[in-house]
Amino acid sequence: MTDSSGFRGLVLGAAAGGGLPQWNCGCQNCRLARDPASGVRPQSQSSLAVSLDGDNWAILNASPDIRQQIVDNRALHPRMLRDSPIKSVLITNGDIDHLAGLLILREKQPLDVFVTSAIGEIIDDNPVFRALDPAFVTRYSVVLERPFSLLPGLEARLFAVPGKVPLFMEDGEPELQLEGEQTVGVELTAGDARVYYIPGCAHISDALKNRIDGADALLFDGTVFTDDEMITVGVGQKTGQRMGHMAISGADGSLSALAGLDIAQKMYVHINNTNPIWRAGPERDMLEESGFHIGYDGMEIDFDSNT
Amino acid sequence: MTDSSGFRGLVLGAAAGGGLPQWNCGCQNCRLARDPASGVRPQSQSSLAVSLDGDNWAILNASPDIRQQIVDNRALHPRMLRDSPIKSVLITNGDIDHLAGLLILREKQPLDVFVTSAIGEIIDDNPVFRALDPAFVTRYSVVLERPFSLLPGLEARLFAVPGKVPLFMEDGEPELQLEGEQTVGVELTAGDARVYYIPGCAHISDALKNRIDGADALLFDGTVFTDDEMITVGVGQKTGQRMGHMAISGADGSLSALAGLDIAQKMYVHINNTNPIWRAGPERDMLEESGFHIGYDGMEIDFDSNT
Repeated sequence: MTDSSGFRGLVLGAAAGGGLPQWNCGCQNCRLARDPASGVRPQSQSSLAVSLDGDNWAILNASPDIRQQIVDNRALHPRMLRDSPIKSVLITNGDIDHLAGLLILREKQPLDVFVTSAIGEIIDDNPVFRALDPAFVTRYSVVLERPFSLLPGLEARLFAVPGKVPLFMEDGEPELQLEGEQTVGVELTAGDARVYYIPGCAHISDALKNRIDGADALLFDGTVFTDDEMITVGVGQKTGQRMGHMAISGADGSLSALAGLDIAQKMYVHINNTNPIWRAGPERDMLEESGFHIGYDGMEIDFDSNT
Repeated sequence: MTDSSGFRGLVLGAAAGGGLPQWNCGCQNCRLARDPASGVRPQSQSSLAVSLDGDNWAILNASPDIRQQIVDNRALHPRMLRDSPIKSVLITNGDIDHLAGLLILREKQPLDVFVTSAIGEIIDDNPVFRALDPAFVTRYSVVLERPFSLLPGLEARLFAVPGKVPLFMEDGEPELQLEGEQTVGVELTAGDARVYYIPGCAHISDALKNRIDGADALLFDGTVFTDDEMITVGVGQKTGQRMGHMAISGADGSLSALAGLDIAQKMYVHINNTNPIWRAGPERDMLEESGFHIGYDGMEIDFDSNT
């Protein structure tokens, strides 16, 4: 952990939906992740914890693995008989890997949940989420571009990024690169530090570049390295674009789009099990030579390091 | 693992809802479970795997921890690029600890899901379960007392046991000891072996005693040791009965009710984080002296051992 005070992040889960390994996948990465001697460690589903003081934490996306993620990270353990350092939860889209963890955060623990109205509708449409007792859990409907307090002293602002509706809500072919309340990025500001968390994004527009330029840190969608990766690995028919995610590599990739920006710490998160950056090789080298870090479960980030 | 063939069980999760430790609990057991030196090991949420051949498995209850449970149990790893030894899933009630794991078993894997119509309605009422693509996942509506094939050669039969609706469906004070399709026990038969799996049960009637007498194995509801346990530990206001579970101890407890029955292997599963049987002590001794085993994650059971 970094200093006892200071704006910091803790990657709870660096993998995309399904994690690494995925339950029914025998691809090279998943086989390596099941072999403790391989050096490729298992990674859980997408979630980031942030804090200003190390005592009070906000969780960005509630993954189905959140119970194990809390067990694995001492900073999130209760300090009293009924207690949690987790004070608030923010959800950036309605995909199962970001939403289903809310079902675990029951047990009558006070908690603030921040979602857009579109994601709030998904929660309302699924009675199973009544597991979160409204006597203890307060849900806030967040308006895009309007700042709010995620934790005392930590301001957050949501903004639309191109994405699509969750897979379980698709009805025929979904609109791709839809911009609205279904998929959002998060700006976090504390003191002089400005951080962006964008775990799902189908395209980087000039407006998005302008927004994030000059940031202290960016955690960005690293789902697939190449758009047709799942097809070439042989585990699916969908492109990254069809899943609502832009590739890292290629002329339209995020590596190229982000290359000219002045961002002190850049890292990829929400990395799919098929992505070659999980293992040593030219793809991983390319990222590291370009100044990108590759997220991993338990990764600690000091957001104040540049200020 | 037992022989390469033969009717066997594998406890994937021995704990009740929330697991051990629970995310926001600092009770004695949860603190011990967070300390690797304590001897009290973490336990995941309630699930049992069964197989006749070690290659094809049925899962009884899909816990939110199922992704990690599959990682932790080699028998359930895929053997090909897209593959799972898990062929079928049976759900015994609609509580989150038994149902939410269905959200993990997506990724276009052929699977048979067996539920009563009451539990099927819960699934239908929550669009999030559309994550299970009907092109790959076949759901069977099971009628109480009517045998069906859970795996080739393995027959199952569901029967009502006293319980209540899931917590998230409570509307005011629920009916306790409700008998119907909301909470069921499972009879499994293969060859001469007869096994019962009853992870939730509010009362043992004479009819239930008659049913299970003479069985080769019983895995029974071990949620709480005493009815007021959560209150005395200080973590909640609810009795075991209010949660739909009978206590282990006491004149009305399961230990006393099951004592006179001729059952070769008896074990408790679905054990709450507050239950003293997780640690060494008089409660654990009492069970072991009475011939009961205490379930744990990864426990292997040879159901053929008596035949």
